[in-house]
Amino acid sequence: MSKSLYVVKIGGNVIDNPEACARFLSSFAKLSGVKILVHGGGKVATQIAARLQIETQMVDGRRITDKPMLDVVTMVYGGLVNKNLVASLQAEGSNAIGLTGADGGIIRSVKRPVKTIDYGFVGDIEAVNDVQVNALLNSNLIPVIAPLTYSSDGSLLNTNADTMASAMAVAMAKHYEVNLIYCFEKKGVLSDPDNDDAVIPALKPDQYIRYKESGAINKGMIPKLDNAFAALQAGVKKVTICHADELEKAAIGDAGTQLSL
Amino acid sequence: MSKSLYVVKIGGNVIDNPEACARFLSSFAKLSGVKILVHGGGKVATQIAARLQIETQMVDGRRITDKPMLDVVTMVYGGLVNKNLVASLQAEGSNAIGLTGADGGIIRSVKRPVKTIDYGFVGDIEAVNDVQVNALLNSNLIPVIAPLTYSSDGSLLNTNADTMASAMAVAMAKHYEVNLIYCFEKKGVLSDPDNDDAVIPALKPDQYIRYKESGAINKGMIPKLDNAFAALQAGVKKVTICHADELEKAAIGDAGTQLSL
Repeated sequence: MSKSLYVVKIGGNVIDNPEACARFLSSFAKLSGVKILVHGGGKVATQIAARLQIETQMVDGRRITDKPMLDVVTMVYGGLVNKNLVASLQAEGSNAIGLTGADGGIIRSVKRPVKTIDYGFVGDIEAVNDVQVNALLNSNLIPVIAPLTYSSDGSLLNTNADTMASAMAVAMAKHYEVNLIYCFEKKGVLSDPDNDDAVIPALKPDQYIRYKESGAINKGMIPKLDNAFAALQAGVKKVTICHADELEKAAIGDAGTQLSL
Repeated sequence: MSKSLYVVKIGGNVIDNPEACARFLSSFAKLSGVKILVHGGGKVATQIAARLQIETQMVDGRRITDKPMLDVVTMVYGGLVNKNLVASLQAEGSNAIGLTGADGGIIRSVKRPVKTIDYGFVGDIEAVNDVQVNALLNSNLIPVIAPLTYSSDGSLLNTNADTMASAMAVAMAKHYEVNLIYCFEKKGVLSDPDNDDAVIPALKPDQYIRYKESGAINKGMIPKLDNAFAALQAGVKKVTICHADELEKAAIGDAGTQLSL
Protein backbone atom coordinates (compact mmCIF):
# COMPACT_ATOMS: atom_id res chain seq x y z
CA MET A 1 0.00 0.00 0.00
CA SER A 2 3.04 2.28 0.11
CA LYS A 3 3.35 2.27 -3.70
CA SER A 4 2.40 5.58 -5.23
CA LEU A 5 0.47 6.35 -8.42
CA TYR A 6 0.11 9.61 -10.32
CA VAL A 7 -3.24 10.29 -11.97
CA VAL A 8 -2.63 13.34 -14.18
CA LYS A 9 -5.38 15.21 -16.00
CA ILE A 10 -4.39 17.43 -18.93
CA GLY A 11 -6.89 20.02 -20.11
CA GLY A 12 -8.20 20.55 -23.60
CA ASN A 13 -6.64 24.03 -23.94
CA VAL A 14 -3.17 22.49 -23.57
CA ILE A 15 -4.01 19.69 -26.02
CA ASP A 16 -5.06 22.34 -28.56
CA ASN A 17 -1.62 24.01 -28.48
CA PRO A 18 0.94 21.71 -30.14
CA GLU A 19 4.01 23.32 -28.50
CA ALA A 20 2.44 23.39 -25.01
CA CYS A 21 1.24 19.82 -25.48
CA ALA A 22 4.71 18.62 -26.54
CA ARG A 23 6.29 20.29 -23.49
CA PHE A 24 3.71 18.70 -21.22
CA LEU A 25 4.20 15.21 -22.69
CA SER A 26 7.93 15.50 -22.27
CA SER A 27 7.43 16.36 -18.55
CA PHE A 28 4.85 13.62 -18.12
CA ALA A 29 7.26 11.11 -19.66
CA LYS A 30 9.91 12.12 -17.09
CA LEU A 31 7.62 11.64 -14.09
CA SER A 32 8.99 8.52 -12.44
CA GLY A 33 6.79 5.70 -11.20
CA VAL A 34 3.38 4.33 -12.00
CA LYS A 35 1.10 6.80 -13.78
CA ILE A 36 -2.16 7.36 -15.67
CA LEU A 37 -2.99 10.27 -17.97
CA VAL A 38 -6.58 11.47 -18.50
CA HIS A 39 -7.03 14.02 -21.26
CA GLY A 40 -9.70 16.54 -22.16
CA GLY A 41 -11.16 16.98 -25.59
CA GLY A 42 -10.09 20.37 -26.80
CA LYS A 43 -11.65 22.47 -29.52
CA VAL A 44 -10.79 20.18 -32.45
CA ALA A 45 -14.11 18.35 -32.07
CA THR A 46 -16.00 21.63 -32.51
CA GLN A 47 -13.87 22.50 -35.57
CA ILE A 48 -14.33 19.07 -37.16
CA ALA A 49 -18.07 19.18 -36.41
CA ALA A 50 -18.31 22.58 -38.12
CA ARG A 51 -16.46 21.25 -41.18
CA LEU A 52 -18.87 18.28 -41.25
CA GLN A 53 -21.75 20.80 -40.94
CA ILE A 54 -22.80 19.31 -37.62
CA GLU A 55 -24.08 22.05 -35.34
CA THR A 56 -22.51 22.33 -31.88
CA GLN A 57 -25.23 22.99 -29.31
CA MET A 58 -24.15 24.32 -25.93
CA VAL A 59 -26.39 24.81 -22.87
CA ASP A 60 -24.81 26.55 -19.85
CA GLY A 61 -21.34 25.94 -21.29
CA ARG A 62 -22.00 22.22 -21.74
CA ARG A 63 -22.02 20.44 -25.05
CA ILE A 64 -25.20 18.64 -26.08
CA THR A 65 -24.10 15.32 -27.54
CA ASP A 66 -26.60 14.12 -30.13
CA LYS A 67 -25.71 11.04 -32.24
CA PRO A 68 -23.78 12.93 -34.98
CA MET A 69 -21.82 14.80 -32.27
CA LEU A 70 -21.14 11.52 -30.41
CA ASP A 71 -19.56 10.20 -33.61
CA VAL A 72 -17.43 13.34 -33.86
CA VAL A 73 -16.17 13.17 -30.26
CA THR A 74 -15.54 9.42 -30.65
CA MET A 75 -13.42 10.18 -33.72
CA VAL A 76 -11.61 13.15 -32.28
CA TYR A 77 -11.18 12.30 -28.58
CA GLY A 78 -10.88 8.52 -28.92
CA GLY A 79 -9.00 8.57 -32.23
CA LEU A 80 -7.17 11.70 -33.33
CA VAL A 81 -6.25 13.18 -29.94
CA ASN A 82 -5.77 9.97 -27.97
CA LYS A 83 -3.71 8.10 -30.56
CA ASN A 84 -1.44 11.06 -31.28
CA LEU A 85 -0.75 11.46 -27.54
CA VAL A 86 0.07 7.74 -27.38
CA ALA A 87 2.39 7.81 -30.40
CA SER A 88 4.19 10.89 -29.01
CA LEU A 89 4.63 9.25 -25.61
CA GLN A 90 5.92 6.06 -27.24
CA ALA A 91 8.50 8.21 -29.06
CA GLU A 92 9.51 9.59 -25.62
CA GLY A 93 10.09 6.02 -24.43
CA SER A 94 6.88 5.86 -22.37
CA ASN A 95 4.81 2.73 -22.83
CA ALA A 96 1.47 4.49 -23.30
CA ILE A 97 -1.76 2.65 -24.12
CA GLY A 98 -4.70 4.75 -25.30
CA LEU A 99 -8.08 3.84 -23.87
CA THR A 100 -11.64 4.99 -23.49
CA GLY A 101 -13.77 3.83 -20.59
CA ALA A 102 -15.09 1.07 -22.88
CA ASP A 103 -11.66 -0.51 -23.37
CA GLY A 104 -11.22 -3.31 -20.89
CA GLY A 105 -14.50 -2.05 -19.42
CA ILE A 106 -12.45 0.29 -17.23
CA ILE A 107 -15.09 3.04 -16.76
CA ARG A 108 -18.78 2.26 -17.18
CA SER A 109 -21.44 4.96 -17.12
CA VAL A 110 -25.14 5.49 -17.41
CA LYS A 111 -26.59 7.86 -19.99
CA ARG A 112 -27.51 11.00 -18.09
CA PRO A 113 -31.25 10.96 -17.27
CA VAL A 114 -33.24 13.77 -18.88
CA LYS A 115 -34.45 16.33 -16.34
CA THR A 116 -34.85 19.87 -17.66
CA ILE A 117 -32.15 19.45 -20.32
CA ASP A 118 -31.45 16.43 -22.54
CA TYR A 119 -27.65 16.33 -22.76
CA GLY A 120 -27.87 13.40 -25.18
CA PHE A 121 -25.10 10.79 -25.18
CA VAL A 122 -23.39 12.00 -22.00
CA GLY A 123 -22.27 9.58 -19.32
CA ASP A 124 -22.48 9.77 -15.54
CA ILE A 125 -19.86 7.40 -14.13
CA GLU A 126 -21.17 4.27 -12.46
CA ALA A 127 -18.13 2.03 -11.94
CA VAL A 128 -14.35 1.99 -12.40
CA ASN A 129 -12.78 -1.45 -12.88
CA ASP A 130 -9.75 -0.90 -10.63
CA VAL A 131 -8.66 -4.55 -10.93
CA GLN A 132 -8.40 -4.28 -14.73
CA VAL A 133 -6.59 -0.93 -14.54
CA ASN A 134 -4.19 -2.40 -11.97
CA ALA A 135 -3.47 -5.33 -14.31
CA LEU A 136 -2.52 -2.84 -17.04
CA LEU A 137 -0.26 -0.91 -14.65
CA ASN A 138 1.35 -4.19 -13.57
CA SER A 139 2.10 -4.88 -17.25
CA ASN A 140 4.21 -1.68 -17.23
CA LEU A 141 1.65 0.19 -19.30
CA ILE A 142 0.74 3.87 -18.94
CA PRO A 143 -3.01 4.25 -19.58
CA VAL A 144 -3.87 7.40 -21.57
CA ILE A 145 -7.61 7.85 -21.17
CA ALA A 146 -9.91 9.80 -23.51
CA PRO A 147 -13.06 11.50 -22.17
CA LEU A 148 -15.45 8.78 -23.32
CA THR A 149 -17.11 6.00 -21.36
CA TYR A 150 -19.68 3.36 -22.28
CA SER A 151 -22.97 2.01 -21.04
CA SER A 152 -23.83 -1.65 -20.55
CA ASP A 153 -26.01 -1.57 -23.70
CA GLY A 154 -22.92 -0.88 -25.85
CA SER A 155 -23.24 2.86 -26.40
CA LEU A 156 -20.26 5.16 -26.09
CA LEU A 157 -20.89 8.24 -23.92
CA ASN A 158 -19.20 11.64 -23.88
CA THR A 159 -17.88 12.13 -20.35
CA ASN A 160 -16.27 14.94 -18.39
CA ALA A 161 -12.52 14.37 -18.16
CA ASP A 162 -12.14 16.03 -14.72
CA THR A 163 -14.74 13.67 -13.31
CA MET A 164 -13.09 10.68 -14.99
CA ALA A 165 -9.71 11.62 -13.48
CA SER A 166 -11.25 12.00 -10.05
CA ALA A 167 -13.20 8.72 -10.28
CA MET A 168 -10.08 6.91 -11.49
CA ALA A 169 -7.99 8.37 -8.64
CA VAL A 170 -10.59 7.33 -6.05
CA ALA A 171 -10.90 3.78 -7.42
CA MET A 172 -7.12 3.31 -7.53
CA ALA A 173 -6.76 4.56 -3.92
CA LYS A 174 -7.58 0.94 -2.94
CA HIS A 175 -4.23 -0.11 -4.41
CA TYR A 176 -1.96 2.95 -4.28
CA GLU A 177 -1.20 6.22 -2.53
CA VAL A 178 -2.70 8.34 -5.30
CA ASN A 179 -1.40 11.76 -6.26
CA LEU A 180 -4.07 13.40 -8.48
CA ILE A 181 -2.75 16.36 -10.50
CA TYR A 182 -4.96 18.57 -12.64
CA CYS A 183 -2.82 20.37 -15.26
CA PHE A 184 -4.24 23.27 -17.23
CA GLU A 185 -3.30 26.67 -18.67
CA LYS A 186 -3.24 28.57 -15.33
CA LYS A 187 -0.67 28.37 -12.54
CA GLY A 188 -3.18 27.02 -10.05
CA VAL A 189 -6.33 28.17 -8.29
CA LEU A 190 -6.29 31.98 -8.38
CA SER A 191 -7.49 34.30 -5.59
CA ASP A 192 -8.08 36.91 -8.31
CA PRO A 193 -9.27 35.57 -11.67
CA ASP A 194 -7.75 38.60 -13.44
CA ASN A 195 -4.26 38.10 -12.00
CA ASP A 196 -2.57 34.97 -13.35
CA ASP A 197 0.09 35.16 -10.63
CA ALA A 198 -2.35 35.26 -7.70
CA VAL A 199 -1.95 31.52 -7.04
CA ILE A 200 -3.38 30.16 -3.80
CA PRO A 201 -0.59 27.77 -2.72
CA ALA A 202 -2.73 25.70 -0.34
CA LEU A 203 -6.50 25.37 -0.15
CA LYS A 204 -8.78 23.75 2.45
CA PRO A 205 -12.59 23.29 2.19
CA ASP A 206 -13.47 26.20 4.52
CA GLN A 207 -11.24 28.59 2.53
CA TYR A 208 -12.72 27.25 -0.71
CA ILE A 209 -16.24 28.11 0.55
CA ARG A 210 -15.13 31.67 1.38
CA TYR A 211 -13.47 32.15 -2.04
CA LYS A 212 -16.65 30.90 -3.71
CA GLU A 213 -18.81 33.26 -1.63
CA SER A 214 -16.61 36.24 -2.55
CA GLY A 215 -16.78 35.25 -6.25
CA ALA A 216 -12.97 34.93 -6.51
CA ILE A 217 -13.40 31.26 -7.43
CA ASN A 218 -16.15 30.79 -10.01
CA LYS A 219 -17.30 29.19 -13.26
CA GLY A 220 -15.35 26.15 -14.47
CA MET A 221 -13.17 26.02 -11.35
CA ILE A 222 -16.12 25.07 -9.16
CA PRO A 223 -16.90 21.61 -10.59
CA LYS A 224 -13.12 20.96 -10.85
CA LEU A 225 -12.60 21.79 -7.15
CA ASP A 226 -15.75 19.95 -6.06
CA ASN A 227 -14.37 16.86 -7.82
CA ALA A 228 -10.97 17.41 -6.25
CA PHE A 229 -12.19 17.74 -2.66
CA ALA A 230 -14.51 14.76 -3.14
CA ALA A 231 -11.48 12.73 -4.25
CA LEU A 232 -9.56 13.66 -1.08
CA GLN A 233 -12.56 12.70 1.05
CA ALA A 234 -12.72 9.35 -0.77
CA GLY A 235 -9.13 8.43 0.05
CA VAL A 236 -6.94 10.08 -2.60
CA LYS A 237 -3.72 11.09 -0.86
CA LYS A 238 -2.91 14.38 -2.62
CA VAL A 239 -4.63 16.67 -5.10
CA THR A 240 -2.78 19.47 -6.92
CA ILE A 241 -3.98 21.95 -9.53
CA CYS A 242 -1.18 23.43 -11.61
CA HIS A 243 0.06 24.79 -14.95
CA ALA A 244 0.89 22.11 -17.53
CA ASP A 245 4.44 23.52 -17.69
CA GLU A 246 4.91 22.92 -13.96
CA LEU A 247 3.92 19.26 -13.70
CA GLU A 248 7.29 18.08 -12.43
CA LYS A 249 7.49 20.81 -9.77
CA ALA A 250 3.86 20.24 -8.75
CA ALA A 251 4.52 16.51 -8.40
CA ILE A 252 6.94 17.29 -5.55
CA GLY A 253 4.71 20.01 -4.07
CA ASP A 254 6.68 22.96 -5.46
CA ALA A 255 4.07 24.52 -7.73
CA GLY A 256 0.35 25.02 -8.16
CA THR A 257 -2.38 24.78 -5.55
CA GLN A 258 -2.19 21.90 -3.09
CA LEU A 259 -5.59 20.87 -1.78
CA SER A 260 -6.09 19.30 1.63
CA LEU A 261 -8.96 18.51 3.99
CA MET B 1 2.58 -24.43 -26.01
CA SER B 2 -0.65 -26.42 -26.42
CA LYS B 3 -2.78 -23.35 -25.70
CA SER B 4 -4.57 -22.06 -28.76
CA LEU B 5 -5.20 -18.51 -29.93
CA TYR B 6 -7.55 -17.20 -32.59
CA VAL B 7 -6.38 -14.20 -34.62
CA VAL B 8 -9.45 -13.09 -36.57
CA LYS B 9 -9.38 -10.44 -39.28
CA ILE B 10 -12.66 -8.77 -40.23
CA GLY B 11 -12.81 -6.90 -43.51
CA GLY B 12 -13.93 -3.35 -44.12
CA ASN B 13 -16.94 -4.37 -46.24
CA VAL B 14 -18.42 -6.20 -43.25
CA ILE B 15 -17.64 -3.27 -40.91
CA ASP B 16 -19.53 -0.98 -43.31
CA ASN B 17 -22.74 -3.03 -43.02
CA PRO B 18 -24.22 -2.57 -39.51
CA GLU B 19 -26.34 -5.75 -39.58
CA ALA B 20 -23.51 -7.93 -40.95
CA CYS B 21 -21.12 -6.40 -38.44
CA ALA B 22 -23.48 -7.06 -35.51
CA ARG B 23 -23.91 -10.71 -36.61
CA PHE B 24 -20.14 -11.10 -36.89
CA LEU B 25 -19.47 -9.58 -33.45
CA SER B 26 -22.03 -11.86 -31.89
CA SER B 27 -20.24 -14.90 -33.42
CA PHE B 28 -16.82 -13.55 -32.46
CA ALA B 29 -18.02 -13.08 -28.86
CA LYS B 30 -19.10 -16.75 -28.79
CA LEU B 31 -15.73 -18.06 -29.98
CA SER B 32 -14.30 -19.70 -26.87
CA GLY B 33 -10.71 -19.25 -25.76
CA VAL B 34 -8.02 -16.63 -26.20
CA LYS B 35 -8.57 -14.33 -29.19
CA ILE B 36 -7.52 -11.18 -31.02
CA LEU B 37 -9.58 -9.22 -33.58
CA VAL B 38 -7.93 -7.15 -36.32
CA HIS B 39 -10.29 -4.95 -38.30
CA GLY B 40 -10.12 -3.22 -41.66
CA GLY B 41 -11.06 0.36 -42.25
CA GLY B 42 -14.11 0.35 -44.45
CA LYS B 43 -15.46 3.13 -46.59
CA VAL B 44 -16.39 5.54 -43.79
CA ALA B 45 -12.93 7.16 -43.95
CA THR B 46 -13.48 8.00 -47.62
CA GLN B 47 -16.94 9.40 -46.84
CA ILE B 48 -15.71 11.50 -43.91
CA ALA B 49 -12.75 12.73 -46.00
CA ALA B 50 -15.17 13.80 -48.75
CA ARG B 51 -17.34 15.67 -46.23
CA LEU B 52 -14.18 17.39 -44.92
CA GLN B 53 -13.27 18.20 -48.55
CA ILE B 54 -10.11 16.13 -48.32
CA GLU B 55 -9.44 14.44 -51.62
CA THR B 56 -8.93 10.66 -51.61
CA GLN B 57 -6.05 9.76 -53.93
CA MET B 58 -5.76 6.16 -55.04
CA VAL B 59 -2.89 4.65 -57.03
CA ASP B 60 -3.34 1.05 -58.22
CA GLY B 61 -6.20 0.59 -55.76
CA ARG B 62 -4.11 1.81 -52.83
CA ARG B 63 -4.89 4.87 -50.79
CA ILE B 64 -2.25 7.62 -50.69
CA THR B 65 -2.11 8.81 -47.09
CA ASP B 66 -1.06 12.45 -46.93
CA LYS B 67 -1.21 14.26 -43.56
CA PRO B 68 -4.88 15.33 -43.78
CA MET B 69 -5.84 11.76 -44.79
CA LEU B 70 -3.72 10.32 -41.94
CA ASP B 71 -5.78 12.44 -39.53
CA VAL B 72 -8.99 11.11 -41.10
CA VAL B 73 -7.96 7.44 -40.85
CA THR B 74 -6.72 8.01 -37.29
CA MET B 75 -10.14 9.44 -36.40
CA VAL B 76 -12.19 6.86 -38.25
CA TYR B 77 -10.19 3.62 -37.86
CA GLY B 78 -8.66 4.33 -34.43
CA GLY B 79 -11.68 6.20 -33.02
CA LEU B 80 -15.10 5.74 -34.60
CA VAL B 81 -14.76 2.17 -35.91
CA ASN B 82 -12.50 0.73 -33.22
CA LYS B 83 -14.32 2.17 -30.20
CA ASN B 84 -17.76 1.20 -31.48
CA LEU B 85 -16.54 -2.38 -32.02
CA VAL B 86 -15.18 -2.39 -28.47
CA ALA B 87 -18.37 -0.98 -26.91
CA SER B 88 -20.47 -3.53 -28.85
CA LEU B 89 -18.25 -6.42 -27.72
CA GLN B 90 -18.37 -5.20 -24.11
CA ALA B 91 -22.18 -5.26 -24.38
CA GLU B 92 -21.84 -8.91 -25.57
CA GLY B 93 -19.86 -9.68 -22.40
CA SER B 94 -16.49 -9.80 -24.20
CA ASN B 95 -13.70 -7.90 -22.49
CA ALA B 96 -12.47 -6.08 -25.61
CA ILE B 97 -9.69 -3.48 -25.55
CA GLY B 98 -9.27 -1.29 -28.64
CA LEU B 99 -5.74 -0.69 -29.78
CA THR B 100 -3.63 0.62 -32.63
CA GLY B 101 -0.08 -0.59 -33.13
CA ALA B 102 1.07 2.43 -31.11
CA ASP B 103 -0.78 1.34 -27.97
CA GLY B 104 1.58 -0.56 -25.74
CA GLY B 105 3.99 -0.36 -28.67
CA ILE B 106 2.47 -3.59 -29.96
CA ILE B 107 3.16 -3.08 -33.70
CA ARG B 108 5.93 -0.75 -34.82
CA SER B 109 6.48 0.13 -38.49
CA VAL B 110 8.66 2.18 -40.76
CA LYS B 111 7.18 4.74 -43.10
CA ARG B 112 7.21 3.12 -46.52
CA PRO B 113 10.26 4.31 -48.49
CA VAL B 114 9.46 6.28 -51.64
CA LYS B 115 10.33 4.35 -54.81
CA THR B 116 8.16 5.17 -57.82
CA ILE B 117 5.12 6.11 -55.71
CA ASP B 118 5.03 8.11 -52.46
CA TYR B 119 2.30 6.39 -50.45
CA GLY B 120 2.70 8.98 -47.69
CA PHE B 121 2.07 7.96 -44.09
CA VAL B 122 1.85 4.22 -44.73
CA GLY B 123 3.62 1.73 -42.51
CA ASP B 124 5.59 -1.40 -43.34
CA ILE B 125 5.64 -3.57 -40.22
CA GLU B 126 8.98 -3.86 -38.46
CA ALA B 127 8.24 -5.50 -35.10
CA VAL B 128 5.38 -7.00 -33.10
CA ASN B 129 5.77 -6.88 -29.31
CA ASP B 130 4.51 -10.39 -28.59
CA VAL B 131 5.43 -10.15 -24.90
CA GLN B 132 3.20 -7.08 -24.42
CA VAL B 133 0.34 -8.66 -26.38
CA ASN B 134 0.68 -11.82 -24.31
CA ALA B 135 0.49 -9.76 -21.10
CA LEU B 136 -2.82 -8.29 -22.32
CA LEU B 137 -4.17 -11.75 -23.18
CA ASN B 138 -3.09 -12.98 -19.74
CA SER B 139 -5.13 -10.12 -18.22
CA ASN B 140 -8.22 -11.69 -19.89
CA LEU B 141 -8.41 -8.92 -22.46
CA ILE B 142 -9.45 -9.32 -26.09
CA PRO B 143 -7.34 -6.95 -28.22
CA VAL B 144 -9.32 -5.29 -31.04
CA ILE B 145 -6.74 -3.83 -33.37
CA ALA B 146 -7.27 -0.96 -35.83
CA PRO B 147 -5.24 -0.77 -39.08
CA LEU B 148 -2.77 1.82 -37.78
CA THR B 149 0.78 1.40 -36.56
CA TYR B 150 3.45 3.88 -35.46
CA SER B 151 7.06 4.69 -36.17
CA SER B 152 9.75 5.26 -33.56
CA ASP B 153 9.65 9.02 -34.25
CA GLY B 154 6.06 9.18 -32.95
CA SER B 155 4.12 9.25 -36.22
CA LEU B 156 1.03 7.15 -36.73
CA LEU B 157 1.01 5.16 -39.98
CA ASN B 158 -1.87 3.77 -42.03
CA THR B 159 -1.25 0.01 -42.30
CA ASN B 160 -2.82 -2.88 -44.18
CA ALA B 161 -5.05 -4.88 -41.84
CA ASP B 162 -4.42 -8.24 -43.59
CA THR B 163 -0.70 -7.76 -43.09
CA MET B 164 -1.19 -6.73 -39.46
CA ALA B 165 -3.27 -9.87 -38.78
CA SER B 166 -0.65 -12.05 -40.41
CA ALA B 167 2.26 -10.38 -38.56
CA MET B 168 0.36 -10.67 -35.25
CA ALA B 169 -0.40 -14.36 -35.88
CA VAL B 170 3.26 -15.09 -36.70
CA ALA B 171 4.57 -13.24 -33.62
CA MET B 172 2.10 -15.00 -31.30
CA ALA B 173 3.04 -18.42 -32.73
CA LYS B 174 5.94 -18.30 -30.22
CA HIS B 175 3.37 -18.57 -27.42
CA TYR B 176 0.31 -20.30 -28.89
CA GLU B 177 -1.00 -22.65 -31.54
CA VAL B 178 -2.42 -19.87 -33.69
CA ASN B 179 -5.54 -20.22 -35.80
CA LEU B 180 -5.62 -17.25 -38.21
CA ILE B 181 -9.05 -16.63 -39.75
CA TYR B 182 -9.70 -14.02 -42.42
CA CYS B 183 -13.41 -13.14 -42.49
CA PHE B 184 -14.86 -11.18 -45.38
CA GLU B 185 -17.95 -10.95 -47.58
CA LYS B 186 -17.27 -14.10 -49.67
CA LYS B 187 -17.58 -17.73 -48.62
CA GLY B 188 -13.87 -18.40 -49.11
CA VAL B 189 -11.36 -18.48 -51.94
CA LEU B 190 -13.35 -19.02 -55.13
CA SER B 191 -12.27 -21.14 -58.12
CA ASP B 192 -14.54 -18.94 -60.24
CA PRO B 193 -14.71 -15.27 -59.20
CA ASP B 194 -18.21 -15.00 -60.76
CA ASN B 195 -19.67 -17.89 -58.77
CA ASP B 196 -19.96 -17.12 -55.07
CA ASP B 197 -20.56 -20.79 -54.29
CA ALA B 198 -17.40 -22.07 -56.03
CA VAL B 199 -15.50 -22.25 -52.74
CA ILE B 200 -12.17 -24.10 -52.80
CA PRO B 201 -12.38 -26.05 -49.51
CA ALA B 202 -8.63 -26.67 -49.17
CA LEU B 203 -5.73 -24.91 -50.85
CA LYS B 204 -2.02 -25.74 -51.00
CA PRO B 205 0.75 -23.53 -52.51
CA ASP B 206 1.07 -25.53 -55.76
CA GLN B 207 -2.70 -25.32 -56.39
CA TYR B 208 -2.60 -21.61 -55.52
CA ILE B 209 0.05 -21.05 -58.19
CA ARG B 210 -2.10 -22.85 -60.80
CA TYR B 211 -5.23 -20.85 -59.86
CA LYS B 212 -3.21 -17.63 -60.16
CA GLU B 213 -1.84 -18.68 -63.56
CA SER B 214 -5.36 -19.45 -64.83
CA GLY B 215 -6.60 -16.08 -63.53
CA ALA B 216 -9.24 -17.71 -61.29
CA ILE B 217 -7.53 -16.15 -58.27
CA ASN B 218 -6.68 -12.52 -58.89
CA LYS B 219 -6.68 -8.92 -57.63
CA GLY B 220 -7.14 -8.40 -53.88
CA MET B 221 -7.03 -12.13 -53.12
CA ILE B 222 -3.38 -12.37 -54.15
CA PRO B 223 -1.82 -10.24 -51.36
CA LYS B 224 -4.25 -11.81 -48.87
CA LEU B 225 -3.18 -15.34 -49.86
CA ASP B 226 0.49 -14.41 -50.05
CA ASN B 227 0.21 -13.15 -46.45
CA ALA B 228 -1.67 -16.27 -45.44
CA PHE B 229 0.84 -18.77 -46.87
CA ALA B 230 3.72 -16.75 -45.43
CA ALA B 231 2.07 -17.01 -42.01
CA LEU B 232 1.84 -20.81 -42.30
CA GLN B 233 5.49 -20.97 -43.31
CA ALA B 234 6.39 -18.84 -40.28
CA GLY B 235 4.76 -21.19 -37.79
CA VAL B 236 1.05 -20.29 -37.71
CA LYS B 237 -0.85 -23.56 -37.20
CA LYS B 238 -3.96 -22.95 -39.32
CA VAL B 239 -5.17 -20.31 -41.78
CA THR B 240 -8.79 -20.12 -42.94
CA ILE B 241 -10.51 -17.68 -45.27
CA CYS B 242 -14.27 -17.52 -44.80
CA HIS B 243 -17.49 -15.52 -44.84
CA ALA B 244 -18.02 -13.34 -41.77
CA ASP B 245 -21.30 -15.19 -41.13
CA GLU B 246 -19.45 -18.53 -40.96
CA LEU B 247 -16.78 -17.70 -38.37
CA GLU B 248 -17.91 -20.31 -35.86
CA LYS B 249 -18.11 -23.07 -38.49
CA ALA B 250 -14.75 -22.02 -39.97
CA ALA B 251 -13.15 -22.10 -36.52
CA ILE B 252 -13.81 -25.85 -36.39
CA GLY B 253 -12.87 -26.41 -40.05
CA ASP B 254 -16.45 -26.67 -41.35
CA ALA B 255 -16.54 -23.65 -43.65
CA GLY B 256 -14.39 -21.47 -45.87
CA THR B 257 -11.05 -22.29 -47.46
CA GLN B 258 -8.49 -24.05 -45.27
CA LEU B 259 -4.93 -23.30 -46.32
CA SER B 260 -2.07 -25.71 -45.74
CA LEU B 261 1.52 -26.16 -46.87
